[in-house]
Amino acid sequence: MEKIAGTGNYKGRSLKILSDTGATIGDTISLKTTDNEQVVGILMPRYESADDDHIVIKLKSGYNIGIDTTKVQSVTNLAPYTNQTIPNSKPEIPRHKKEGDAVRGIADNKIHECHDPLPNIALISTGGTIASKIDYRTGGVHSALSASDLYASIPELGKYALIDPEVILNEYSENLNPEHWTLIANKVAEKVKSGKHRGIIISHGTDTMHYTASALSFALQNLPVPVVLVGAQRSSDRPSTDAALNLIGAAVLCIKFNYSGVFVAMHAGPSDDVIACHVGTRVRKNHTSRRDAFESIDMEPVALVKGDTIEMQLQRQPQVKLYPRSDNISNFLVRPAYDRRILLMKYHPGFDPRLLADLMTRLDYKAIVLEGTGLGHISRQCMPELRRIIDSGIPVFMTSQCIWGRTRMTVYDTGRDLLKIGVIPLSDMLPETALVKAMWVIANSKDIKHSRQIMQQNIANEITSAIPITDK
Amino acid sequence: MEKIAGTGNYKGRSLKILSDTGATIGDTISLKTTDNEQVVGILMPRYESADDDHIVIKLKSGYNIGIDTTKVQSVTNLAPYTNQTIPNSKPEIPRHKKEGDAVRGIADNKIHECHDPLPNIALISTGGTIASKIDYRTGGVHSALSASDLYASIPELGKYALIDPEVILNEYSENLNPEHWTLIANKVAEKVKSGKHRGIIISHGTDTMHYTASALSFALQNLPVPVVLVGAQRSSDRPSTDAALNLIGAAVLCIKFNYSGVFVAMHAGPSDDVIACHVGTRVRKNHTSRRDAFESIDMEPVALVKGDTIEMQLQRQPQVKLYPRSDNISNFLVRPAYDRRILLMKYHPGFDPRLLADLMTRLDYKAIVLEGTGLGHISRQCMPELRRIIDSGIPVFMTSQCIWGRTRMTVYDTGRDLLKIGVIPLSDMLPETALVKAMWVIANSKDIKHSRQIMQQNIANEITSAIPITDK
Repeated sequence: MEKIAGTGNYKGRSLKILSDTGATIGDTISLKTTDNEQVVGILMPRYESADDDHIVIKLKSGYNIGIDTTKVQSVTNLAPYTNQTIPNSKPEIPRHKKEGDAVRGIADNKIHECHDPLPNIALISTGGTIASKIDYRTGGVHSALSASDLYASIPELGKYALIDPEVILNEYSENLNPEHWTLIANKVAEKVKSGKHRGIIISHGTDTMHYTASALSFALQNLPVPVVLVGAQRSSDRPSTDAALNLIGAAVLCIKFNYSGVFVAMHAGPSDDVIACHVGTRVRKNHTSRRDAFESIDMEPVALVKGDTIEMQLQRQPQVKLYPRSDNISNFLVRPAYDRRILLMKYHPGFDPRLLADLMTRLDYKAIVLEGTGLGHISRQCMPELRRIIDSGIPVFMTSQCIWGRTRMTVYDTGRDLLKIGVIPLSDMLPETALVKAMWVIANSKDIKHSRQIMQQNIANEITSAIPITDK
Repeated sequence: MEKIAGTGNYKGRSLKILSDTGATIGDTISLKTTDNEQVVGILMPRYESADDDHIVIKLKSGYNIGIDTTKVQSVTNLAPYTNQTIPNSKPEIPRHKKEGDAVRGIADNKIHECHDPLPNIALISTGGTIASKIDYRTGGVHSALSASDLYASIPELGKYALIDPEVILNEYSENLNPEHWTLIANKVAEKVKSGKHRGIIISHGTDTMHYTASALSFALQNLPVPVVLVGAQRSSDRPSTDAALNLIGAAVLCIKFNYSGVFVAMHAGPSDDVIACHVGTRVRKNHTSRRDAFESIDMEPVALVKGDTIEMQLQRQPQVKLYPRSDNISNFLVRPAYDRRILLMKYHPGFDPRLLADLMTRLDYKAIVLEGTGLGHISRQCMPELRRIIDSGIPVFMTSQCIWGRTRMTVYDTGRDLLKIGVIPLSDMLPETALVKAMWVIANSKDIKHSRQIMQQNIANEITSAIPITDK
């Protein structure tokens, strides 16, 4: 780790305490609390919009701890920054502490104590930028922090809830597969069934967070509480990280949102003040790097989180159906199976019709999701191959590569011809959602007819309009 | 054709003339001009925002004709609407008139005469909604109108230019392939080389118009004049058609735009007043049905057309390079070859790595364009197959399925690993543009090394930033 210049975004009271000591980021400091506890570790930078009430120290165990400045009695600068000070390896879990224990604002120390009856939230960590840190040698980013580490680095979370952190994966989300969705769904189900949590946060890489959100939306039915996926576009140890606000937004949703279901909480705009709550099946990562990369498609986010207030946006969108929270978990159902043998194909000029048939016969795909052009079209050159595939019992579903809008296959000759050979239009279902739903439907339905029916039925707001009936 | 109720959007002077006669849409009327010419045909509806200076009549030949109301002496209602009145077949070209003759505001009549030295524009028609009409029996839309028909149905065009129409295709654009791009490029080249036209309009289906725009952007180099693709989201004989305003916008660009190159002209917003001028390589159809479905990606449209005024937006976007018009065609180059053996693949969770290798060995693809996640990622499970493909001499290019933003493959382990095995990042090039460019590059470069170089060089604003150099 290289030396980070400056004050690491400390300000106000916390900056004053540090300045008085002459400590800068990376130095090893000793901090004594008003409760007469002593904490030794490396002074960590804060994120840009952090409060000025906490000083964050990386302990020898690898955990970060946030210490309330009102409890700081004195700070001593023990040793200046050295290259070897901070371990790059994944922090160990202290022996006296199991992953899964509820902590509040600390990891393996007892500086805060729980006086208030705060609600309990489960934080399931799967990896990604939100749980990663910069390698100051290479400038690259590694997936590294644990859930408790992540939580400890944002001590403000302690204002809102008792967090029960658990690391189940440590992967960038481009490496996640349907098997991981099953793992996550089962873990969420376990937390839900414990009845202990007012909501569940899943920290996740942003690359495929919308795919996982869709997968959970289908697998977890009649959820009693909100399940909120959250990621970051800048790693958690960067001053400019968006992790803190996103996590706090997710926590506020877990505690105060009146609806259950699967949601994604990410920045609503480029500035660091509003978090959007997206429906899990209707959200897409639409920018490679912006903090507000995630957008609701063909709808607005169902709510905006501003500070600790939730502003609902449902009254403008009667087509969106959300279910209220409930204490009753008797209807809660988990169906976490997915069949990955689904082919997603984007049609384009020059598309080779042989490709489809070739893949179907050789790679044992069970269904095709097409990203057609416009209202749901492909060229007439592809029709014979497509007809053969459909006639052989493989369902073919049509979405649009336009992303916004809906398939309407009765308007043009091309669409009508496709309907005639049995292509199934999916209205305004996003291609990514359609892929995930097909994986889920094929794994969970008894036959092709049943699969086709379920694909065209709205389960979790993935379809917000009636689909034209096909006669095949 | 079923009876259309109401006044067919006639208003002001034209509505008054028709009301006085009692004629309604679909009636056969006889109209006498102040020049003592007589026109007999079926009264056609106007589009929503049409002027009130013309009455449009479908002649027996199948052509529409727009007659200036100041030249109308009298109108007689000859016969009410009948089911058989309007032929559904493609209109015949009148014997005394060849396709390609310049006409102005009329097709086979001489009600207008050419007094002004108007500029000449070529209008190349390829089909699509802009050249189609509703089948009132089925409610569907057919590709049917000819370029001159289309032109005659929008007599206001006559205010701006002498139009030289030519039909070269009559296809919805989902049926267009690289062979058609070659045909269109050669036709444009022929018009350019004639030196007769101040600009060239290509009317085109919207489904793949952005692919064709990219294809022409690479094939037509050092263009002396603007080449403007234009389409419609509602067919030209519908009252709500956007064809008229889009075409007029394209004509204004042909006449008044100071820059050459390939552009797309479509509605800038949902209201019927502003046309956006998009750079051919940086535009995408982002909605299935809205009039403003086309959007410039990672930039603003370079200009807006408001009435007959062009409002430039270049000063805000220094990264965009446009070239001024010129009378000199000596540098103009046509390279209209495309190799369709390019595989476009979108990565997603559950993606089967066998798919790539299988396709490459069996279907003789020459390059792969990947739509990775986020900054340009795919799972580590795909690395071995990808490495084998690259090692066998097939270039693999990386774009992002996020659509907005750019690939940055040096930030995360995954990206660095992909760079190491030789994956070539394409910065902010759109996946669709990358596919088309690869088709063009593979057909026009002497070897793989050359192909890789050209892919990473900006030719027509498809890359608006430096690409990180790869060492393989």
